[in-house]
Amino acid sequence: MSEYIEHDKNGVSVGLVEKQYFTFAEDPHHPLVLESGASLGPVTLAYEIFGKLSPEKDNVILVLHALSGDSHVAGYYHADDSKPGWWDIMVGPGKGIDTDTYFVICANILGSCMGSTGPASVDPKTGRPYGLSFPLVTIGDMVEAQRILLDHLGIDKILCAVGGSIGGMQVLEWCVRYPDRVVSAIPLATTTRHSALAIAFNEVARQAIMADPDWNSGDYYTGKKPVHGLAVARMVGHITYLSDESMRLKFGRRLQNKADFSFNFDADFQVESYLRYQGNKFVERFDANSFLYITKAADYYDLEKQHGDGSAVAAFSKTRAKFLVVSFTSDWLYPTYQSRSVVKAMKKTGLDVSFCEIESQWGHDAFLLPNERLSALVKGFLERVRREAIP
Amino acid sequence: MSEYIEHDKNGVSVGLVEKQYFTFAEDPHHPLVLESGASLGPVTLAYEIFGKLSPEKDNVILVLHALSGDSHVAGYYHADDSKPGWWDIMVGPGKGIDTDTYFVICANILGSCMGSTGPASVDPKTGRPYGLSFPLVTIGDMVEAQRILLDHLGIDKILCAVGGSIGGMQVLEWCVRYPDRVVSAIPLATTTRHSALAIAFNEVARQAIMADPDWNSGDYYTGKKPVHGLAVARMVGHITYLSDESMRLKFGRRLQNKADFSFNFDADFQVESYLRYQGNKFVERFDANSFLYITKAADYYDLEKQHGDGSAVAAFSKTRAKFLVVSFTSDWLYPTYQSRSVVKAMKKTGLDVSFCEIESQWGHDAFLLPNERLSALVKGFLERVRREAIP
Repeated sequence: MSEYIEHDKNGVSVGLVEKQYFTFAEDPHHPLVLESGASLGPVTLAYEIFGKLSPEKDNVILVLHALSGDSHVAGYYHADDSKPGWWDIMVGPGKGIDTDTYFVICANILGSCMGSTGPASVDPKTGRPYGLSFPLVTIGDMVEAQRILLDHLGIDKILCAVGGSIGGMQVLEWCVRYPDRVVSAIPLATTTRHSALAIAFNEVARQAIMADPDWNSGDYYTGKKPVHGLAVARMVGHITYLSDESMRLKFGRRLQNKADFSFNFDADFQVESYLRYQGNKFVERFDANSFLYITKAADYYDLEKQHGDGSAVAAFSKTRAKFLVVSFTSDWLYPTYQSRSVVKAMKKTGLDVSFCEIESQWGHDAFLLPNERLSALVKGFLERVRREAIP
Repeated sequence: MSEYIEHDKNGVSVGLVEKQYFTFAEDPHHPLVLESGASLGPVTLAYEIFGKLSPEKDNVILVLHALSGDSHVAGYYHADDSKPGWWDIMVGPGKGIDTDTYFVICANILGSCMGSTGPASVDPKTGRPYGLSFPLVTIGDMVEAQRILLDHLGIDKILCAVGGSIGGMQVLEWCVRYPDRVVSAIPLATTTRHSALAIAFNEVARQAIMADPDWNSGDYYTGKKPVHGLAVARMVGHITYLSDESMRLKFGRRLQNKADFSFNFDADFQVESYLRYQGNKFVERFDANSFLYITKAADYYDLEKQHGDGSAVAAFSKTRAKFLVVSFTSDWLYPTYQSRSVVKAMKKTGLDVSFCEIESQWGHDAFLLPNERLSALVKGFLERVRREAIP
């Protein structure tokens, strides 16, 4: 392990990690039955673990990732990797989620394309990638698959489930679905159900993919991929992850070439070339169908409807977890008012809830960026729930 | 003229109107020289007039339209038209812009596709539609073409230039470009220069069009049109015209089919089917290349840079117009803070400025919707400037 890895700019790294795989529902007679009623099997989850499981198995932190995330939360696969995992600033020795103390698990979500079963996986029945014959999966289905993985790992209790955005929805779902297994939870920059605005953005992104003729009704795995549509979809996403203010600070009206306008349709402004770059980079690593499936799962998610017959209070009365709810001032995808209403409902049921709205210019993306306040909050909350959990 | 037309739900209509055409720069030796340095000719502007020009020619209101607008501000082309012009709620007998008092002119902007010369027009040099060989036009070029039209109509003074969004940019441009010709101005829901966020939305919309293989580098006039790309572009636009709140009120999470989710990629939510409908409707009436050209013109617009060497105060010192600046609380495309900074700069130069932020849930679109407060404001402002303009 190189010096670089042990002391990179994010602090001490958890070091080298390995992606692992767990497959279940291999028996066609015992598939995973999804919320839609459809069956799926076999199901593979790619996952990674960080830190050491305590003998009492009471130090488990389950990290739940967002739309385009993966199991690679922290550390490096190889000593010469240029970048660590996506939340390396938070997970590692001495960090907000201290891997010297906690045992961290993260699995790639069902429906994704980063090692877990999704529409790009081969359907054993046909020997070809599922494409659109892959059944729609829900946030509940993702959590169900994670629960089966934890059973397999012999882990009963989660000290804390933590995640942002779509990861935060999984956090909430875990709490109400398995109240006996979740001691505490940190939903970050998330909501119990998408607003019309959030659905609208997802729908436009999906339409961009489906408008690409190379999408070919989802059957593109042997030919050209719908890279243009997926790039546009990602650009839409990137706008929602930032904010008016962050874009002004990051780009303003700065030109790509300082001279003057091109007077054609090249990228004149830096913000244009940033979006094009993000779009083009994304298509190299992400599957267009997975984008469709995961955004649809997020749009469908409705904790109130599913667990409380329309009432958030009724839904949260099903959990006993302690909560740290965090929102960010400039997040307009999941604005603070949504977190406040979550917190209000939690408090009404008598739950132990802390709420923090963090001042940030960086929009929805803020939860992924270095933030000392967030790291300190998470660290303090975990220390408290661990202390209080010791019998 | 039917009873319906005279007293429709918008109040008394201005009645039947006719689209007219004015062509200039027909002599190849005297083309319209654009801000980019390129030349264009001949240039046709489609325009409509409403009300009567006073003998003193002192009652002219110039209405400037936004991205997808046209010259058809009010009234009907035919007695059996199902819908009047786009601002019929504001322009007509007894309305905010009273056609019993004022002579209203509106021309389709240069670069558009609703009768004026744009990329879909035939290039006389080749006998084929311009496509991308059409030169980029700017907000300044649009105003220049309008100025030539007014000269042709024998109109020297504009009592008031009024318009929202990109129309508001033209309003501001008129004021600083022709200070002797503009007595007053009402820029609505607009800005002197796009924020990075506004550019980002436009760029994603453009990318959606250009990603459509039927776009064919802009050369699609004899074949299939890039309807999928343009529909996605329009959907992006529609999100920006609304607001989180208006979408919640208009759609919330209501389902298209009340039963339950489709568990496929159909439009489950009403907001999805609204966006699809808007996208599909738009492609029937609008040219994809015009969308590219006009959004680029809007992104390029920078009043401060072009007229004030970076200073809004310096730019506005070039006009003597009286201003009524209007913004809307929920407009996040051109937020109120941008109008406030415009007003601040205007006041610093000693201009006569009224500013009003109108409470509205309807986002950027608010300026196009029935709003008694807005109508009353416009009416009162016009009465005052007319009174004060009488020597």
